[in-house]
Amino acid sequence: MNLSGIVGYPVTPFSDDNGNVDFDNLGRVIDTLLEAQVDAIAALGSAGEAAYLTENEWQQVAEYTVKHVNHRVPVVIGIAELTTAQSIKRAQYAYQVGVDMIMVSPFSYYKLNEDEIFGHYESISNATPLPIMIYNNPATCGVDMSPQFMLKMVNDITNTCMIKDSTGDIQRMHKIYKLSNGKVPFFNGCNHMALEAFNAGASGWCTVAPCLIGKQPKQLFDAVKQSDNEKARELFYQQYEFLEFIVQLGLAAAVKSGFAIQGTPIGGPRKPLLPLTELKQKQLKTMLLELNSVA
Amino acid sequence: MNLSGIVGYPVTPFSDDNGNVDFDNLGRVIDTLLEAQVDAIAALGSAGEAAYLTENEWQQVAEYTVKHVNHRVPVVIGIAELTTAQSIKRAQYAYQVGVDMIMVSPFSYYKLNEDEIFGHYESISNATPLPIMIYNNPATCGVDMSPQFMLKMVNDITNTCMIKDSTGDIQRMHKIYKLSNGKVPFFNGCNHMALEAFNAGASGWCTVAPCLIGKQPKQLFDAVKQSDNEKARELFYQQYEFLEFIVQLGLAAAVKSGFAIQGTPIGGPRKPLLPLTELKQKQLKTMLLELNSVA
Amino acid sequence: MNLSGIVGYPVTPFSDDNGNVDFDNLGRVIDTLLEAQVDAIAALGSAGEAAYLTENEWQQVAEYTVKHVNHRVPVVIGIAELTTAQSIKRAQYAYQVGVDMIMVSPFSYYKLNEDEIFGHYESISNATPLPIMIYNNPATCGVDMSPQFMLKMVNDITNTCMIKDSTGDIQRMHKIYKLSNGKVPFFNGCNHMALEAFNAGASGWCTVAPCLIGKQPKQLFDAVKQSDNEKARELFYQQYEFLEFIVQLGLAAAVKSGFAIQGTPIGGPRKPLLPLTELKQKQLKTMLLELNSVA
Amino acid sequence: MNLSGIVGYPVTPFSDDNGNVDFDNLGRVIDTLLEAQVDAIAALGSAGEAAYLTENEWQQVAEYTVKHVNHRVPVVIGIAELTTAQSIKRAQYAYQVGVDMIMVSPFSYYKLNEDEIFGHYESISNATPLPIMIYNNPATCGVDMSPQFMLKMVNDITNTCMIKDSTGDIQRMHKIYKLSNGKVPFFNGCNHMALEAFNAGASGWCTVAPCLIGKQPKQLFDAVKQSDNEKARELFYQQYEFLEFIVQLGLAAAVKSGFAIQGTPIGGPRKPLLPLTELKQKQLKTMLLELNSVA
Repeated sequence: MNLSGIVGYPVTPFSDDNGNVDFDNLGRVIDTLLEAQVDAIAALGSAGEAAYLTENEWQQVAEYTVKHVNHRVPVVIGIAELTTAQSIKRAQYAYQVGVDMIMVSPFSYYKLNEDEIFGHYESISNATPLPIMIYNNPATCGVDMSPQFMLKMVNDITNTCMIKDSTGDIQRMHKIYKLSNGKVPFFNGCNHMALEAFNAGASGWCTVAPCLIGKQPKQLFDAVKQSDNEKARELFYQQYEFLEFIVQLGLAAAVKSGFAIQGTPIGGPRKPLLPLTELKQKQLKTMLLELNSVA
Repeated sequence: MNLSGIVGYPVTPFSDDNGNVDFDNLGRVIDTLLEAQVDAIAALGSAGEAAYLTENEWQQVAEYTVKHVNHRVPVVIGIAELTTAQSIKRAQYAYQVGVDMIMVSPFSYYKLNEDEIFGHYESISNATPLPIMIYNNPATCGVDMSPQFMLKMVNDITNTCMIKDSTGDIQRMHKIYKLSNGKVPFFNGCNHMALEAFNAGASGWCTVAPCLIGKQPKQLFDAVKQSDNEKARELFYQQYEFLEFIVQLGLAAAVKSGFAIQGTPIGGPRKPLLPLTELKQKQLKTMLLELNSVA
Repeated sequence: MNLSGIVGYPVTPFSDDNGNVDFDNLGRVIDTLLEAQVDAIAALGSAGEAAYLTENEWQQVAEYTVKHVNHRVPVVIGIAELTTAQSIKRAQYAYQVGVDMIMVSPFSYYKLNEDEIFGHYESISNATPLPIMIYNNPATCGVDMSPQFMLKMVNDITNTCMIKDSTGDIQRMHKIYKLSNGKVPFFNGCNHMALEAFNAGASGWCTVAPCLIGKQPKQLFDAVKQSDNEKARELFYQQYEFLEFIVQLGLAAAVKSGFAIQGTPIGGPRKPLLPLTELKQKQLKTMLLELNSVA
Repeated sequence: MNLSGIVGYPVTPFSDDNGNVDFDNLGRVIDTLLEAQVDAIAALGSAGEAAYLTENEWQQVAEYTVKHVNHRVPVVIGIAELTTAQSIKRAQYAYQVGVDMIMVSPFSYYKLNEDEIFGHYESISNATPLPIMIYNNPATCGVDMSPQFMLKMVNDITNTCMIKDSTGDIQRMHKIYKLSNGKVPFFNGCNHMALEAFNAGASGWCTVAPCLIGKQPKQLFDAVKQSDNEKARELFYQQYEFLEFIVQLGLAAAVKSGFAIQGTPIGGPRKPLLPLTELKQKQLKTMLLELNSVA
């Protein structure tokens, strides 16, 4: 599986009436990403509020996403479950409905040690033929995996073949690149470090940004690929404050608010998560107006 | 409700055969705590691996604990769910089966802001008449609540009336005591700071230690109450390395291993959690032999 | 040498006219400490702005302090120099003028490793017969020494015999006590942890507080010694906000402002340090009025 | 003054006999940098062990450097003194001997607040016509300055016109660039982030690396300028482990050891700093052999 470029993350819309997943709007969100020319769709990630869905909802979103994308781009599905047993169940379901790849993070209550994390990934790998992207995001998952340890898993566990890191620490990317001689593909999940991650050798950028600013992330990727450093820098700084802002606000709440601002109300996040305050909505509106008129 | 002294935490034993909750052994664990003269039983906390149970298992453990304790001491039940809806459901179940108090922590995937946390506690308080202990443990729950914010919730939300803090930061306790004029009861969840937490005014110590070292935590509490500083210091340093060690190892795995070492095998933790390595088991055995022969 | 209780820290007054050290006022500051019944005087510490003095000024302050104290209590002198050569020179001067003990911290520009720190202390020990208190304060000195490492130095280097720790981490004190079987005396330099440090076994409290609130620190020490926990806690919380406040403000600026507020203007700190803002002065005044009317 | 590219940092050699500054070897070090095509020479920085020199030595090194460079490239001199008075004295001396620019950092014992830091820079600016580079390096200087605050100083204080940041936090560079609309030149002092700092818009890279690996840093700069991303990435990863290694070892000790390894023994660092251990020397030798044979 050859993945590179912009990996777009849909949010999971809920109905204002009953709080259930709103599949029509989920289709609209996915279409928005495809129009923004993303190179893959990664559903049920942080932005997709996967942590707040029931098992049944999770399954429905996975299945719907695969059908709706319909092979136009690869579909990646995030798995971040507290028990190994539940993670395996989700991985098997994902395979069954035709997902192309799973992205697994060691979401944890107790801090897991490396033996525990290794065992977790190994058990999942043994239970599915799907390729696995190892996802490190200590801010949401509660444990941190070093580049060395992730590379060891890529080496020792059959299906683990890629790495996503969202720490925003450029040195992690240097380590992954250097220690693997540039052989293990890695993806950047820190929006406001997108430019430098590409420069450091990242294969792609995992982001919700195309939900709100269309092709601009893809244009940044293309500029770097074409070695047009001036243009890449210009495109990056153009998006910079927006990228930093949505991370600060929480991606799910920010993107859902942004859809409403741009004319497609898709509901708010699930409690305890709250929608943006009015002040934040105004700030986001100003940014989006500026960004999308420039583009 | 008047809670003080030693709040004992049972682990949740699983059967080696099928991995299900082993209620006979759960009864043995609770009995061990009661023999150690704990002043309350707090089930389904971190040590109880609540995060790794299904909803059904969780309910069964809550119900069993209430029945088995049978009013000998108050029963506290921990609630740490990602959605507000699920937390409410658990709180209502706890009330229904006769729990005396719930201990609620804002377990989170996305970092919650104060408005979100406040709304979470308020919604739970509105859904149950049970008194609520606010529990701050950023190491497991992913968000940190300041003393000021927790006191605001105690003040503004009907059923929140006590605080448990496990950060191990003595200054938090100073702030709670000082800002509430010593009026809001607070509990220490950092085992290896037990002595000083009592000195700073903590009402109690939330701990798994009596599972393995019997009355020694209670003796420490009594010594402080009797202003016998020499004895309190001696008792504390006697337990110190053990207390620090079980925190480092992960409480569930450590306590389960300790039960086996002392002749009551109750199975290991649930995956991805792993049992102690053989080396760690030996170290724990040495400590327990020394501690329990002294006592 | 038997040191315990309250170790009082004089500030170093400068003349408003020419910025030179004002020895008359230094005498007044020392007298204030002695009237507050401190058990030792420690000049040229952080509070004494030693880092901002010329070598000549430093020597004069050391000599003056010894003469003015005149054996009423032991005199400790702080040494925090960037080079080993300069530290030795200061240690030898201190011995020559009759100082009882030196308190040495590894002030650093480059982060020093343990070999470098060990060599530093060893060289100083070889150059003077004075007992040495090892002083750990990463906030000002830029390097952190673990309890294990400091105990190793106490063990392996001839004149190092005591430890002062200002990190405010109660676990450091537990480690020092436990690993040395209570044999190596340690002192607390974190003002707003004074109560618990004594409970944990600290021999003394190193503090500027008696400059401004008289015998109250000594009363706290006495209450703990007499195992009067209620009184100790009351005395501690009475002083708590003041202790925390002066640390936040910077000790030198805060104490100098406090002297002025209480009728003895002794000038401000040396630039780039600035005196307290008017707002902070008012807050300090309110605290001092309350504390000193109660006492 | 137009500064960009590679700013080379000489170490300050000491004689093995008497520990005095060895000016012949200082000349050799400067020549090595010039042969490596650095765009400026910055003496008396961290690598120059300025913190460990007497005032007299510092003056001699400043004067010697200006004379030896003899206008071939601009000369920058570092000033990191604890008092404002001493900093002014150094700045005036630097001007008097013909230095082109000073690089000022707020080296501190007490953590300085922003008013104190502002006053410090303002006083120095008022005392000299030299352009001032604001230098932020909390790891050595003990205080951290935000991009916002440094830009405020560039704006409000006459002679402050450039920024050097050594935190290795790429987001600081984003902030400086974005908030100043790319107008305020900034320099990167974190060796192992050199590639991305240039991508983010840094004007230059402040580094000791050319002391040991010749023109390779300059080649990296040129590749970025020519938008040859492939070559820039290759050059960067070629140097990466070396760059990270010398930072970990301490720049002064590492560079001095490297000179000896490559046939120019120039003595070790000043105590308490120690030379590299034999093991580290071997590792450095291996790296240098590889890097300099490739080049």
